[in-house]
Amino acid sequence: MFTQEPRQIVSRRDRPAKPPLSRDVIVTTALDLLTRNGLSALSLRKVATALDTGPASLYVYVANLAELHALMLDRALGAVALPAAGEGGWRERLTAVLASYLRVLYDGPGLAQLALSTIAVGPHALRLIETLLDLLLEGGIDPPVAAWAVDLLTLHVAAVAAEQDARRAQGDTLGAVARAIAAAPAADYPHIHVLREELLSGGSARFGWVVDVLINGVLHAPALPRATTDACPPAVSIPQDPAAQRESDR
Amino acid sequence: MFTQEPRQIVSRRDRPAKPPLSRDVIVTTALDLLTRNGLSALSLRKVATALDTGPASLYVYVANLAELHALMLDRALGAVALPAAGEGGWRERLTAVLASYLRVLYDGPGLAQLALSTIAVGPHALRLIETLLDLLLEGGIDPPVAAWAVDLLTLHVAAVAAEQDARRAQGDTLGAVARAIAAAPAADYPHIHVLREELLSGGSARFGWVVDVLINGVLHAPALPRATTDACPPAVSIPQDPAAQRESDR
Repeated sequence: MFTQEPRQIVSRRDRPAKPPLSRDVIVTTALDLLTRNGLSALSLRKVATALDTGPASLYVYVANLAELHALMLDRALGAVALPAAGEGGWRERLTAVLASYLRVLYDGPGLAQLALSTIAVGPHALRLIETLLDLLLEGGIDPPVAAWAVDLLTLHVAAVAAEQDARRAQGDTLGAVARAIAAAPAADYPHIHVLREELLSGGSARFGWVVDVLINGVLHAPALPRATTDACPPAVSIPQDPAAQRESDR
Repeated sequence: MFTQEPRQIVSRRDRPAKPPLSRDVIVTTALDLLTRNGLSALSLRKVATALDTGPASLYVYVANLAELHALMLDRALGAVALPAAGEGGWRERLTAVLASYLRVLYDGPGLAQLALSTIAVGPHALRLIETLLDLLLEGGIDPPVAAWAVDLLTLHVAAVAAEQDARRAQGDTLGAVARAIAAAPAADYPHIHVLREELLSGGSARFGWVVDVLINGVLHAPALPRATTDACPPAVSIPQDPAAQRESDR
C-alpha cells in the first residue's frame, strides 16, 4: 500500500499532449471502457493501456479494481437528479429520485451491473443516501426502517436497470418467454394460462407501479428484527461473511 | 437454423467413453463452466471445447447462447423447493419458496447474474411461476396484481443473490463502506450520521425482513395502470423496446 499524500504525487509523464494521471482521469477512462466493453472486460491493466501507461502507475492513485469500481459508481451517481424541497410531496419526490437513479444506471451500459456488485463510496453516494433517508423520514417512516429501506429501494431499481440493460444487449429475449407462457397447458399451469396476458403486459409502465408497491411495503414494514446478527433460521439466511465461507470451502 | 427432429440426430462421435452430445449434456457442461469461470466467460465455443467438439455440433441442439442461458437457468430452478400444501399458511410458504430460490441462485456462482439477464424458459420456471401465483392468489391478492408481483418478487431475490455473489467473489467490500459511513460528517449528512449503525446492521437477518416488506407492499399494491403500453411519463419510463432504441442510437 502507498502511504504518501496525493498532493505529493507528481506525474513524470513528459508528453504534455496527454493529461497527467490523476484519480479523475483514471475514473473517466474506466467509465469509458465500461460503456464500450462491459464490466467483465474491465481491468486495471486495460485502463492503464488506454492511458498509455503501466498498471503500476495506477496503483499510486487507486488501491485495486474494487476501489476503482466504487469510485466509478460514485462518479456516475453524480448525475442522479435530486428534487428541490418544494417539488411535490415526499412520495412524489422519492419516486422522482428513484426514476432518475434508474435512468442514470440504464443510460450507461454496464453501470447497473456495477451498482449490483459494488457499493459506491464517495460524496455522490452519500448525497443520494442522505436524500433518500430525508424523504423517507419526511414520510413518517421509522428511522431504523428508513435505513434498511434505502438499501431495498436502490437494490431493486438497480436490478430493474440490470435486467433492461441485459435485454438491450441481447436483443429480443421476450419472444421465447411469450411463446412459452402462451403455450403453457391450462391443465398443468392453470394460473399461468388465465394470467398469460397480465404476466407479459405493462412494459415500461411497470416501473411506476413497482415503486408504488415498494413504498407501500416500506410504509407497512415490520420493525427491524431484534437479533441483527446471523441468528435467523437457515431457510432465510445467506452467509453473513461470504469471504470466510469461501475460505472454508477450499 | 436446423429443422430436423431431435430424435433423428445421431452423434457420430466414436469414442464411447465420452457421453454422446445432447441438450442435457450441453446444459450440464455449461452450468459447470458457469460455476467455475463466471457468466462473462461462457460461450458456445468454450462449451464445445469442454465437450471436445466444435461449436457447429452444438447448434444442432441449441439455437444460440441466449437459448443456452435460458435452458441453464431453467435446469437450475429445478432445485427450488416447493412446499406442500399443508406446510403453514400461504405467506409462510411463499417466504419459504423465495428463500429456496435465493439459496439456489446463491449456491451456484454466476447463477444470480444469469437470473438477472435471462428469463428461464422451461418446465421448472413455469412450475415456479405457477406456484408463486397459487400462493399469492391464496393470499387474496388480485390476480393481475399477482401476475406482476411474481416478477417483482423474483427479481428482488435475484438481486439479493447477485449482490451477495459479487461480495463473495470480491472478498471484503463492506469495510470501505463502513468507514465512509462512519466518517460522514454530521453537519453534511445528519441522517446518515444518526443512522450509521442501522445502515450497516442486519447481515443475513435482513432477507426475512425484506421479504416481509415486499409481501406487505404487494398486499397494499395499487391496481395495475390502465395504459400498459409506453404511455407513462418519461421520468419513470425506460424504453419498452431497448433493441429498437439501440438501433436508433446508431
